[in-house]
Order: sequence, then structure tokens, then C-alpha cells
Amino acid sequence: MLGFAVLGCGRIGRLHAATIAANPRARLVAVHDTLAASAAEVAARTGAAVAATVRDALDDPAVGAVVIATPTPTHVPLIAAAVAAGKGVLCEKPIDLDLARVDACAAEIGAAAARVLVGFNRRFDPDFRRVRTRLREGAIGPLEQLAITSRDPAPPPAGYVASSGGLFRDMTIHDFDMARYLAGEIVEVQAMGAVLVDPAIGAAGDVDSAAIVMRAASGALVQVSNSRRCAYGYDQRIEAFGPLGMLQARNRHATTVEEWTAERTGACDPVLDFFLERYAEAFRLEIDHAIDVFAGAADPLASFADGRAALALADAAHASAASGRSVRVPTCG
Amino acid sequence: MLGFAVLGCGRIGRLHAATIAANPRARLVAVHDTLAASAAEVAARTGAAVAATVRDALDDPAVGAVVIATPTPTHVPLIAAAVAAGKGVLCEKPIDLDLARVDACAAEIGAAAARVLVGFNRRFDPDFRRVRTRLREGAIGPLEQLAITSRDPAPPPAGYVASSGGLFRDMTIHDFDMARYLAGEIVEVQAMGAVLVDPAIGAAGDVDSAAIVMRAASGALVQVSNSRRCAYGYDQRIEAFGPLGMLQARNRHATTVEEWTAERTGACDPVLDFFLERYAEAFRLEIDHAIDVFAGAADPLASFADGRAALALADAAHASAASGRSVRVPTCG
Amino acid sequence: MLGFAVLGCGRIGRLHAATIAANPRARLVAVHDTLAASAAEVAARTGAAVAATVRDALDDPAVGAVVIATPTPTHVPLIAAAVAAGKGVLCEKPIDLDLARVDACAAEIGAAAARVLVGFNRRFDPDFRRVRTRLREGAIGPLEQLAITSRDPAPPPAGYVASSGGLFRDMTIHDFDMARYLAGEIVEVQAMGAVLVDPAIGAAGDVDSAAIVMRAASGALVQVSNSRRCAYGYDQRIEAFGPLGMLQARNRHATTVEEWTAERTGACDPVLDFFLERYAEAFRLEIDHAIDVFAGAADPLASFADGRAALALADAAHASAASGRSVRVPTCG
Amino acid sequence: MLGFAVLGCGRIGRLHAATIAANPRARLVAVHDTLAASAAEVAARTGAAVAATVRDALDDPAVGAVVIATPTPTHVPLIAAAVAAGKGVLCEKPIDLDLARVDACAAEIGAAAARVLVGFNRRFDPDFRRVRTRLREGAIGPLEQLAITSRDPAPPPAGYVASSGGLFRDMTIHDFDMARYLAGEIVEVQAMGAVLVDPAIGAAGDVDSAAIVMRAASGALVQVSNSRRCAYGYDQRIEAFGPLGMLQARNRHATTVEEWTAERTGACDPVLDFFLERYAEAFRLEIDHAIDVFAGAADPLASFADGRAALALADAAHASAASGRSVRVPTCG
Repeated sequence: MLGFAVLGCGRIGRLHAATIAANPRARLVAVHDTLAASAAEVAARTGAAVAATVRDALDDPAVGAVVIATPTPTHVPLIAAAVAAGKGVLCEKPIDLDLARVDACAAEIGAAAARVLVGFNRRFDPDFRRVRTRLREGAIGPLEQLAITSRDPAPPPAGYVASSGGLFRDMTIHDFDMARYLAGEIVEVQAMGAVLVDPAIGAAGDVDSAAIVMRAASGALVQVSNSRRCAYGYDQRIEAFGPLGMLQARNRHATTVEEWTAERTGACDPVLDFFLERYAEAFRLEIDHAIDVFAGAADPLASFADGRAALALADAAHASAASGRSVRVPTCG
Repeated sequence: MLGFAVLGCGRIGRLHAATIAANPRARLVAVHDTLAASAAEVAARTGAAVAATVRDALDDPAVGAVVIATPTPTHVPLIAAAVAAGKGVLCEKPIDLDLARVDACAAEIGAAAARVLVGFNRRFDPDFRRVRTRLREGAIGPLEQLAITSRDPAPPPAGYVASSGGLFRDMTIHDFDMARYLAGEIVEVQAMGAVLVDPAIGAAGDVDSAAIVMRAASGALVQVSNSRRCAYGYDQRIEAFGPLGMLQARNRHATTVEEWTAERTGACDPVLDFFLERYAEAFRLEIDHAIDVFAGAADPLASFADGRAALALADAAHASAASGRSVRVPTCG
Repeated sequence: MLGFAVLGCGRIGRLHAATIAANPRARLVAVHDTLAASAAEVAARTGAAVAATVRDALDDPAVGAVVIATPTPTHVPLIAAAVAAGKGVLCEKPIDLDLARVDACAAEIGAAAARVLVGFNRRFDPDFRRVRTRLREGAIGPLEQLAITSRDPAPPPAGYVASSGGLFRDMTIHDFDMARYLAGEIVEVQAMGAVLVDPAIGAAGDVDSAAIVMRAASGALVQVSNSRRCAYGYDQRIEAFGPLGMLQARNRHATTVEEWTAERTGACDPVLDFFLERYAEAFRLEIDHAIDVFAGAADPLASFADGRAALALADAAHASAASGRSVRVPTCG
Repeated sequence: MLGFAVLGCGRIGRLHAATIAANPRARLVAVHDTLAASAAEVAARTGAAVAATVRDALDDPAVGAVVIATPTPTHVPLIAAAVAAGKGVLCEKPIDLDLARVDACAAEIGAAAARVLVGFNRRFDPDFRRVRTRLREGAIGPLEQLAITSRDPAPPPAGYVASSGGLFRDMTIHDFDMARYLAGEIVEVQAMGAVLVDPAIGAAGDVDSAAIVMRAASGALVQVSNSRRCAYGYDQRIEAFGPLGMLQARNRHATTVEEWTAERTGACDPVLDFFLERYAEAFRLEIDHAIDVFAGAADPLASFADGRAALALADAAHASAASGRSVRVPTCG
């Protein structure tokens, strides 16, 4: 049984804490948050201890692995500290908003990066995983086109986008990672953004809608469609196309029940909304995978390098949307 | 935290044991099986103790509730013993194959029947539950027609049907219960059986395929379609029809992924197969419900009386299939 | 080019007239109706002549085939007269409500029955035809179970059921024919009827809802579900089940467009409603087939004998619903 | 009844000829092709006369309208000649490959352009039309994103692309038109092309796969995905997204039949393939519309200006794919 500490008890930290507590191969040893009340609440629900400081958590020999679910600017120092303390790390995305800081972190932790996972939960989703498996099995031949539809139910407060790094870095980053997960390395990015949902987001210097095209090193073309608002829920779909056909991962509804009336014929229940529901199984599998990786039984499916690469694509999209030009992405040596 | 003992460590007993062990509101105290090795294996996996005898389990003050997952002929005495020991009971269906023994058991346990649940897991399935909820909300008006499709992936050994009571009592019993769950009391049964799957089942005096029509006290007509074999998996569907429309619960696939090739366009993955997978969530919710009932916080959703009523319908179907006549079902006083 | 006369210019007669007029291999020579104005209207639209009497139409040497779309009691004499005049005949169903009259008609026309088609339009529907083709190709192995769902959008006036012969003879007759089309000869019928839609239909001595089970000579079980009212349109579905799988013909919508909003996710447009729309293609193919049959280029897909057999099943269902007993159906010589 | 002449008896000309012959409001007067045998064959099938020369067809007073289905370089002179002869014109797309020639043609024909239709058949497709209608009815609010998937079953010979103007001008042109049909005027185009299907197409200087993003004057973002090869048939889908939800036009299958076996659960029949089948209804409605327009009873739904605008977008895509830059499209005064 691997002992975990969860740093940060916000929405995503609470989810990880509950997931760890329910995993028969894991034990939730400690939780920490700068808001003591938040940590206490999670501790009460899960039976974990409250770590008064990060240091306490890292010094606890019962803690073998750390989940970093704190605000983004703290990720890099916490990764470094956790690695220095010999812990396995699962860090929420993005590693940082600044590629230079990410690279500095990489230099600092060196080979220990092999024990640092980045929280690209969608890689563990059974539907998207199935697309990847069938692709690798050759079901449609080599990938030629990939279309990712990714829309959040509702926009964050406009204030959030200032600190989040904007749409490409806080939201599309998952899609950039999905592009790499399914299409491999990306070499060229074209992005077009628009403010269609909330003018305040535009006033804050960001976009809330985007259409992106990428070229993979393999030659495949990748399209991403993003919106900060989606009336019918959390729209998460993928379509992969190759010489032998197409694979489609579709939205999941709460039940299979259909309702046929004079007014409508269709799903009785809406699309699963939001990520806590849609990716519940993915989060469970992510923790399972972390346990395997930290035990040396598996290679990271979402590595530090993957975290860096997705951020580099976000930067490229940013540059392309600003300039109207296609941006070349240097592939990592 | 409610302490449970699981009696019987076969396929379904093992499932209940694992479900209880994972439930944060329950504790698996003890398991028992006449095969000591089976009990030991489950105990090792779940951290429960092995109860050497049923008596030991019932005498354990840490045990507040008992799950009976033993062979059918032992259900009645075990229910009686568990009730006498003051335990809550969740008994797998059927209560017994003989209605007279069921009635004798009811007489013996008296008012304690309120703490005896019968394992009609499908009542807890989120899809079927949703159909019921929407029905009660009036989505299609009063139920007029109900169609239940229920097919097992593969037939049991022909030897099994001798002890199982036959198709109507071991398999259709779930559909009889579903009919009552959605359409209320049944007053008339017409059944037609056939041997289409395995002649050995016919030689054993049973049928392996059936089409049944029932009339509910409300006037609604109910149809059931059964087969002991289904090439595409475990076919579990429901269709409810009323003046305002129709509700359909459809089969569940392992993923939402579709595969479009020159040869086919459709689901990449088969229908969930078999009941352990298809009703995994239902089994979880069933244990949750049992905890609520035994705590006095809920009325039984699948009661002893429900177990009796489904058996009475199975008997009626048996009589109808043999005689070619419609059989009236006395409604319980 | 085959010359047609259409007798009867009601809803179905008008449809046949238009279909014939648009068929490049046919010519609509004459139309007749006891209401001269109806005939004149159809003639004006299609360029056909009005035949003042049936005799005129039958005496016209340009008329090679006759479509009988008059009220049911006139079918038998018109078939006889048309056959005597040497015409090919396409007669709407039912041939008659009285099996004895049908048999007398058969005796009278003798071998000429080979040039008499009965209007079981659904046999020509591309979806149902596809089910039949795939069945014959062995896609699911030998048929074991067949489920026919057949619901009209709205009940006829209660007065209609007096003359129509009731639900089984005017509506289910299509389903009895479909049962034979897909499952072959039927040997046993169990029917349960109910009055759930319109009490006036019950007062007129008929039912408006029914659930029927049949056994085919092959051993297959067949289920039919009928209602005189369906909120979401004309519900016309078929499900065939065999050892290798299942074939399903589903309802057709006006377009493929789906609408996903906060309130619903599903078809934008309702199910095609009513038979003129749903079976438009079938009616076209039926006329095509008639031309082939009358040219000696095809055997009748819906013969006089098929018309008789479906009526015999309707009678059996009537008897079963009244007696609560399974009714054996004598297979024809 | 409007008299038509069809110029050009290739695949699309033959289709128009048959459609006109079957339309009760039209008469196919004459057909012409430089290959006399082709014209003769179509004439024999439809009852039309063969016009030995274009002049003969244009001089025929029974001809009120002309369908131009000849090779692209002849379109402009034929439009001019037909207009000069006072005929209504339905010209296949593209008007020409050279925008300057299109503009010269516009100058020449002047106000007569109001009687020139361009063959954007997809505008008449009931599914896509339904999307447009629901958009205009406000079903999803103002359009924010549009995704067009458009893939041909198989690539043309590489030699064809030399004369066709390439992917953007011969194939995507339909999608550019659809973008304008649903999203209105387009102001910016980004295109990325690739050679993934046939190296010979690349050698001929064209691409066979493309991903395009456009910005509409309204602010909406439009995505197009193209491939010259599609294993599962003719992939023609549209997705429109707005603040209130999404509209999706899906692929059409030959039947509604589903096949569920151990190997697959999905459509029994493939996607309709190719445009003759998929857009059969659209071609019928297009001719109907042309009759209305030439009778002064409707405004052109696919005008000469629409033909020009789609070509301008193709040129812009070409420029963007070559330069890697976003290209501004001047909106027409």
C-alpha cells in the first residue's frame, strides 16, 4: 500500500483525496492546504491526517507519493521539493505557465523526472484510451486526420483568465496533450481565436472560442474546436480518421434511457457534466497508474516531458492566433 | 459502519463481499462457505474473517447484517436463523422454488420481514431506475405497454435447470420482478416456451426461449422476451409506452467508441457482458440501499413480498406454458 | 408500358394513382370512384381519364391491370370481375373480413389467383426487406424470435371499428403478414387485448391495444405489440433474433439532424408519420413489382394466399383474446 | 411546364436529364454532348431530342432553361450564350477556375445574373436545409462555430487535378459554399493541406487532405475537414454550435437496419455513396427550385454571386496553404 499526501484541497485536490482513499492499493496519509479548514474537512471525510505544512508532509516517511493540486505558480517549487524528498509526484497541469521555468525545473530534477507524472487525466479515459488502442492495432491504418471537440459547460470568471494563462494554456492544454497522445509529435500550429461568449474575457486580453489546426510529424492533420460555454454540457469528443476508416469517441450520458414524445425523441438525460463526473473513471485509473509507476511497474503515460510539450503547443497557438501565421514547433531533441 | 457477514462465497457471494469491502459505510466482518478454501480466498482478498460455521457468523455481535448467497434450498432456513439472531438480511433470489415454503417462512418471520431484502439487483440499475422515475413523473402518462428483453449470453449446463426450477424461476424471475417494479401488480399471465438453443435443456423438461404476455391490475400489457443464448452479449432492455410517448433503456457498451470502416459502422465494443459488469453499479447501490434499510432510513425497494410475488408469476407462467391457457394470478391480500 | 385503372379514389387510391403516374413503366389510363368528384380530381392531377363505371374501366383494352382501393365489402366481387376481364389485380388488404367469402373467391378465380396481388405494402419497405434478405443470407442464423412493434399515430373514429372488423383484422393484419414474411407459416396464436386509448372503441366491442405471441412452424416465437395511438408518430419497428445475433429495423425520421440543447439531445425531427410518408418508397416498389408480376417476370411477393393467411391469423387472434386460450392455426394444404 | 435543354451528358448531365424527365412541372426538350453517342443514349432514355449543336438547343423556342454540365472551361461562354438567348441557366460549379473570367462574365451578363443558378446541390439537401432552418429559427442562438466534414470515397485520377484547379477549387468549393450558406460572409481563411492519400496527386502539385479554418463576418469560426479518400463511403456531415446548443446533420445509411452479432453492433448497410445517391433528393429539389426561379416565383438560393464567392474562398485557401498565413477575404461591395 502506497502512502499519499495531497497538497491543495480545492476541487481537484478533494477529488484526488477521495479517489486515493477508495483505492485498495493506496492509503491517504496526509492532506495539506494553506486554508487549514479545507484540509481539515478533507481529512475528516477520508480519515487522513492534516499536515500543517508541506514540509511536514514531505518529511513523513509514511508518505511515498505526493499529489500536487495547489495553484499553478507553486507547482515547480513543490515538484522540486517532493523530488528532493524522494517522493513520487503526480502534479496537476500545467507544470507552469512559463516554459523557461519548466525547463529550469527539468534541469533541477534531472533523472528524477521519471517519477513525476502530470495530471493529463484524459489519457486514462476508457473511451479515448480505446481510440488509442484501436489506432495502434491498425483498425483504421495510420492516422491521417484527428478532430478534437472540447467545450466547457460555462466560462470561468473573467478574472481567472489573467492568472490561468488564457484559454490555450488552461483549457486547450488538455487538447494539445490529446493531440500528442493520439497523433504523436506536433510540428506546426495554426490557431484562430474569438470572443463569442463573454466580452469580459476579451477585455481581459483572452479569447473564449478557438479553432486550431496542427500538423503532426507523421503528416497527420489535427483539428481542435474549443468553447468556454456549452449549453448541453461538457462536450468531449474525438474523431480519428485513417485510410481504413474512422474511430469516434462520443459524449457520455448519465443513462442510456431514451425518451420519445411528441416534442422530442432522444436521450432522457444530458451529457455528463462536468469533468468530475465525465472523467471519474479516468481519475481512478490515473491514481492506479501512478501507483504502478512509483512501484517501477510501469512507464509514465503522462510524463513531465508531456507536460512541457503541451505547454509549448499552447505557446505556439498563442503566437499563431496573435500573428495570423502558422507557427513551427521545434521537436524536442 | 454496518458490519456484514457474507454466507456463500460463489460468484455472487464474492461480488457482494468485494462491494461491501469497498463501501465506506460498511465493514465486511466475516465470510462463510461450506468450502473452507473459498471462504479463505475471499477473506484474504477483503480482510474479513472466516466464520467456520453459519452459527459463528450469526453469533458475532459485530455482524449487523447478513448476505445470503448460498444454494437456493438453504435460503429459507438461513433467513429464519438470521432474523432470529436479529440481523438484517439481503437474500439472493429466489427465496425458494416452492411457494408454500416461502409462505411458511413469511409466517415464521412475521414482522421481521421488513428487514429482509431480496436480491433483485436490476431494481437498482440506474437505467431501469430512471425509467421508473420518469414514469412516476408522468413523462409518458400512465403506463400502457411494457416490453422487457432479457437474454443471457450462454445457457447454463442442462443439469443446472433441474435444480434451478427452470427458465421461469431462475431467469425470468428477474423480468417478473421488473414487470411489477414498473407496471405494478400483475393479474394475468400467458406464456409460450420453446427449445431453440439446447436440446438437452428440452430433454431435462425445460424450455430455453420464451415469450410471455401479462396484464397488470392497472390494465397495462407487459411483454417479456427471453433466450438462454445471445450472440452479442447480455441483452437487457426495457421499453415503456404510454399516451404521451415511450421510454427506452438500451444496452450498455464497454465504451462509446464507434468504428466506421468499409465493413461496418457501429460500436467498437460489445454490449457489457455479463451481469457482474452490466449491473456493477446496481450491486453497489443495492448494498447502499440495504445499509439504509437496516438503519431504518429507507423502506425496502425489493422486499420479501416482492420475492414471493415474482415466484408466483413464475409458477403462473409455468402453468400457462404447459396448458396453453391464460392464468389468473391472485393478487395478494 | 402497362396501362392501369385505379378503382376507388380515397386516400390510398389517390396514392396509387400518383405512384402509377410517376412510374416510367406504367400509364394511368383510368380512375373510378362512386363519388364522381373524387375521380375527377385525381384524373385532373394525373392526366388519366375518368371511368364512369367499373365496367367501363374493365372493358378498356388499354387497361392491363386494376388497382382495387374501394371499401372492403366490394373487394371480392371486383377481384372476380377484374380476373374475368383478364386483368392483373392489385387489391388492397384485407381481401374480405369473412374467410369463407375469401375461400369462395379463391375457388371462383382458380389459377388466375397467380395474377392477384394483395396490398401488403410493408413487404416492399427497404428496411423490412433488408431484414428478410439478411435473414435469408444467414446473418443471424435461423430465426428464433421476432418482435414487431406497430403503432398508429391516432385511433380511427370508434364507428370505423364496427365496419373494419376490429383491430386484428384492419391493423394487426399487416403484422400478421409481416410475421409470415419473416418467420414463415404460423401454427399457434395467443392474443391479449385491452382498451387503453378510447373507451368508445371498447363500447363498440373492440380493443385498441394488443400483445400477441405466435409460434411459427419453424419453432420460432413471434411477438406483436399494437396500439391505436402513439404520441411520437407512426411506430414501425422489427427485431429478428437468432443464434448468431439480431437484426433491427428502426423508425425513420424526416432528417438525420440532431439537436443538442440544455433541454434535450436527440432527433430534431419526429418519426415519419403516417403511412403515406413512412411507406412512400414501399408503395413505389409495390407498383414496380406488380408490373413485373403481370409481365410474368416475377412471382407475387404478396399473393392472394398471403391475404387469406393473414386474415386467418386475425381470426385466430380474435378467438384467443376472447377465450384466453392459445389457438392452433391449421396450415394450408 | 418548363422546357429544358441539358448541355453535357456526362455523369452529372445524365442525372439532371433524368431528374428533369421525372419532374411533372418540367419537360426535357433536348440534350447535347460533343460525343454524339452520349447525347443519343440520354435522349433514348428520356424521350428528349438530340440537339446537334449548342446553338440548336439555344435557338429552340421550346427550351426555356438550360442546364450546363459541360467541362468547366466552357461554362462562361455557355452562360453568356444562354443568357443572350433569354434562357434561364443552371450551371454546374465551378463557374470557372479563374476569378477574373468570372468577373468578366458577371459584367457581360449584368442583371441577367438573376436568372443564373449555380449547382451547389448541397444547399437543397433536406438535412443541411434543416440545419439552416433551425439556425434561422434560433434553435441554438447565433452561430458561433461550424464544422463541416466532407470526404469523397475515392480520389480522382491524379491527372484530373491538373484540370480541376485542385482540391480547394473542385471539391472544397462545396464546403466553402456551405460555410457561406450557414455562416454568412467569410472574411478570413487559414488552410493547411497534406498529401496523405496519393503521392501522384502531390506530384501533380495538389494536396489530397486539408484542414481549413475560417472566420465569418459575424465572428463565427468555421472548420472544414477534407479527404479525397474515405473507406466507409461518402462522409458528409455538419455541426453547428451556438450559445443554446448544437445542430448535427449526420451521414445517411441505405437502411435503418442494425445488425448485432458477436463481431459487431451497428448499421447493417454502409453510408450512402456517392453523391448521386446521397444527394438524390437534393438534385430533385434543385430542379424544382430552378423552375420556381425561372418563373419569377423564387429568389435564387444558389446565385451567380454565390458561385463567385466560393471560388474566391478557394483561391484564399490556396494562398494560405502555400504561405502559411491567414488570408483576408475582401467582402463583396
